[in-house]
Amino acid sequence: MKYILAVVVLSLLTLQIASAQTQDEQTIRQIFNKALAEGKSYEMLDYLSNKIGQRLSGSPGAAAAVEWSRHVMQDYGFDSVWLQPVMVPHWVRGQKEIGRIVNSKKMGTVDVNVCSLGGSVGTGPDGLVAGVVEVKSFEELAQLGTKNVQGKIVFFNRPMDPTQINTFAAYGGAVNQRGAGASEAAKYGAAAALVRSMGSNLEDYPHTGGMRYAPEQGKIPALAISTRHAELLSKLLKEDKGIQLYLESHSETLEDAPSFNVIGEIKGSEYKDEIIVVGGHLDSWDLGQGAHDDGAGCVQSIEVLRIFKTMGYKPKRTIRAVMYMNEENGLRGGTKYAEIAQKQKAKHIAAIESDRGGFAPRGFTISATPAERSKIQSWKPLLEPYGLSDFSQEGGGADIGPLGPLGTATIGFLPDSQRYFSYHHTSEDTFDKVDKRELELGSASMAALVYLIDKYGLK
Amino acid sequence: MKYILAVVVLSLLTLQIASAQTQDEQTIRQIFNKALAEGKSYEMLDYLSNKIGQRLSGSPGAAAAVEWSRHVMQDYGFDSVWLQPVMVPHWVRGQKEIGRIVNSKKMGTVDVNVCSLGGSVGTGPDGLVAGVVEVKSFEELAQLGTKNVQGKIVFFNRPMDPTQINTFAAYGGAVNQRGAGASEAAKYGAAAALVRSMGSNLEDYPHTGGMRYAPEQGKIPALAISTRHAELLSKLLKEDKGIQLYLESHSETLEDAPSFNVIGEIKGSEYKDEIIVVGGHLDSWDLGQGAHDDGAGCVQSIEVLRIFKTMGYKPKRTIRAVMYMNEENGLRGGTKYAEIAQKQKAKHIAAIESDRGGFAPRGFTISATPAERSKIQSWKPLLEPYGLSDFSQEGGGADIGPLGPLGTATIGFLPDSQRYFSYHHTSEDTFDKVDKRELELGSASMAALVYLIDKYGLK
Repeated sequence: MKYILAVVVLSLLTLQIASAQTQDEQTIRQIFNKALAEGKSYEMLDYLSNKIGQRLSGSPGAAAAVEWSRHVMQDYGFDSVWLQPVMVPHWVRGQKEIGRIVNSKKMGTVDVNVCSLGGSVGTGPDGLVAGVVEVKSFEELAQLGTKNVQGKIVFFNRPMDPTQINTFAAYGGAVNQRGAGASEAAKYGAAAALVRSMGSNLEDYPHTGGMRYAPEQGKIPALAISTRHAELLSKLLKEDKGIQLYLESHSETLEDAPSFNVIGEIKGSEYKDEIIVVGGHLDSWDLGQGAHDDGAGCVQSIEVLRIFKTMGYKPKRTIRAVMYMNEENGLRGGTKYAEIAQKQKAKHIAAIESDRGGFAPRGFTISATPAERSKIQSWKPLLEPYGLSDFSQEGGGADIGPLGPLGTATIGFLPDSQRYFSYHHTSEDTFDKVDKRELELGSASMAALVYLIDKYGLK
Repeated sequence: MKYILAVVVLSLLTLQIASAQTQDEQTIRQIFNKALAEGKSYEMLDYLSNKIGQRLSGSPGAAAAVEWSRHVMQDYGFDSVWLQPVMVPHWVRGQKEIGRIVNSKKMGTVDVNVCSLGGSVGTGPDGLVAGVVEVKSFEELAQLGTKNVQGKIVFFNRPMDPTQINTFAAYGGAVNQRGAGASEAAKYGAAAALVRSMGSNLEDYPHTGGMRYAPEQGKIPALAISTRHAELLSKLLKEDKGIQLYLESHSETLEDAPSFNVIGEIKGSEYKDEIIVVGGHLDSWDLGQGAHDDGAGCVQSIEVLRIFKTMGYKPKRTIRAVMYMNEENGLRGGTKYAEIAQKQKAKHIAAIESDRGGFAPRGFTISATPAERSKIQSWKPLLEPYGLSDFSQEGGGADIGPLGPLGTATIGFLPDSQRYFSYHHTSEDTFDKVDKRELELGSASMAALVYLIDKYGLK
């Protein structure tokens, strides 16, 4: 009898699981159908990229993007939409930079494509002329020391490792040259730092990106050079150590400027005090349109909520789309958001960020407790039919990072990484580099995960 | 004692497996390193796309591509390189087509973007003017019957299903309109067939592609219309059934022309009579450069052999790169290759085709015996670190299809499918749509699988 009862209970349980599975499968299928057949991500990104364009913190474009995203979320009828004030750094590039090899014995005068790194001081209108010392690492620089570096332009030329399958790993292996190269070079009296662009391939355009000065060092100009011209310069230096380079840049840092995170939410029906965030960053670098970085993440986040609304899906928990301001050169928005969350004791159970471009979905990265991680990984069978099969990597996202210490599971949307560092931080990061289906699939992927977290929680 | 022996044997066996595993891991890592750091696929495709360009069967471009690929493989020092003669259909488009709505009450005269489908007869220089009947299926057409269709242009407007994650499935669900629409329409006395382009998105350019006339029907002109203009035409027809369309096309089929499959091989060191083929098709449609379709597959196939050579890897079996001629409008090359293989009793244990574009690798499709399939699937742990995780789908490839009945396992390289049907058979299938890393990863993926098949066989 007991045995029979156990069998019956087990059967009912199995049935229940099977039916839940089927319902989840159906809901996720519906989410993807909505995104692929009637999605608005691409249309939104078209506007944000082509009508607003670049939106570096403190710029008119950033202000326009704030207003635009507020309006869009209001028009979609989210329960509340508001702005969260935050002061942001205000760095400006000024007129276009000049890079010129002035005395190549072989080639005479050769223009090279350079751009200031974000946060860098300019050379001023007179520019600077100096010899060039090429290094591949800070160790090599230290070995050269002051006597070889004083008054020179230090040329950091370690490429991103092309053999890494994950291009973010290759980026991680090279980006310290961009972030810290100038101050390392300043230690030995360098006149300027010139950094090989963080690009996956040989290209003609330079990649900008953030750099920081160490407080104890003087500030010298820091610029990036296109990968192709980095190769050229290196080749010419091998033949002639006496090469002189002219650099002219006009960047400067102004007073901090007022700006905003933009937040839209759908209130939870059962656990309204438990918040799930989907987000991207609204600011971008100034050379392109910030289409992949991170217009894509912004429109995908808005789209998650829009899809729920058009499906008539009422989340149990509160779902927020957050457009963070100032990821690129300060992280002030992400920091401010977490500060306020902490002050308000707002319980954020999970935050998902999309900031790896609008490419075809591959999976999610996870920074969470082992139990939370296992729970997310247990949903793999539901997500795999949509190309989401990689749940193995650690990681959340820059903007949602400050929520981690508050006990939030931080999750990164993981699209295919192969093309990202062809566009990242360049003039090429434009709308025409985005594929509609790839972008909309990303929105649906995030919505599907939010749906599962909302339904089952993470505990 | 027996127990201890068993343990020792088991341990040795485990060690041996572990060491084989490690060696395989190393070799595959080396293959990917070669492709990513020193690969030539992109450079080859640049030449094939930008210097040679379109290469429809029978065209000067096709002849140039034959010579080019022969030279390339000779220059890389493959053991033998030869041409395999084959007669191919010779269809020519003639001067650019005209599509024009001539009497829209709302918009007056409106040009629409159309192109002849491959194999179609032309309208002749006088063109034709007729009313338009829109249908979504052959069933709908049959219901309309002769009285509604006679003398009209039948407009087949069933879109590719955007909710399919696999765009090839969506293509499969729509392409009968292109292939058979004209003869279906001719049954009821239609003047011409106009088919909504096989494109994933709304676009301005039409997609060409093969069509066939049923022998029992008269031949009427068959054209494709861009998806955006298909939407427009459909909208205008809803408002005004009296719309007339002018179509002018100049295509014609000439005498069959001589051409070639191009074959390069590295002789096996142990089982030289067992052949593994990697291939793509050298012909392309005439509107773009055939960069993704299928220049990518050709250069990837050559690259597999080149990687082996530069690694100093001596395959046990004979590895052949085959550039098939005439996949697009006849499959004469693939058919001829299998005919000769059968006649020569050449044992082809496996054939891998790349004909889904040069996009980021996702896996392989497999048409083989259950045992062969299981063996290939057992290698998944070795291939998954490179993004190759989907081994579940049935399928080989068009050109290698005729080898299947001879007992060959036919395998399709499976890249991400999201962007393919934005370029496929259009003016947009150009080199700039190809990402270097994605392309080179495809070559390495194929080389890795060939390495495993070569080393372990498929039995």
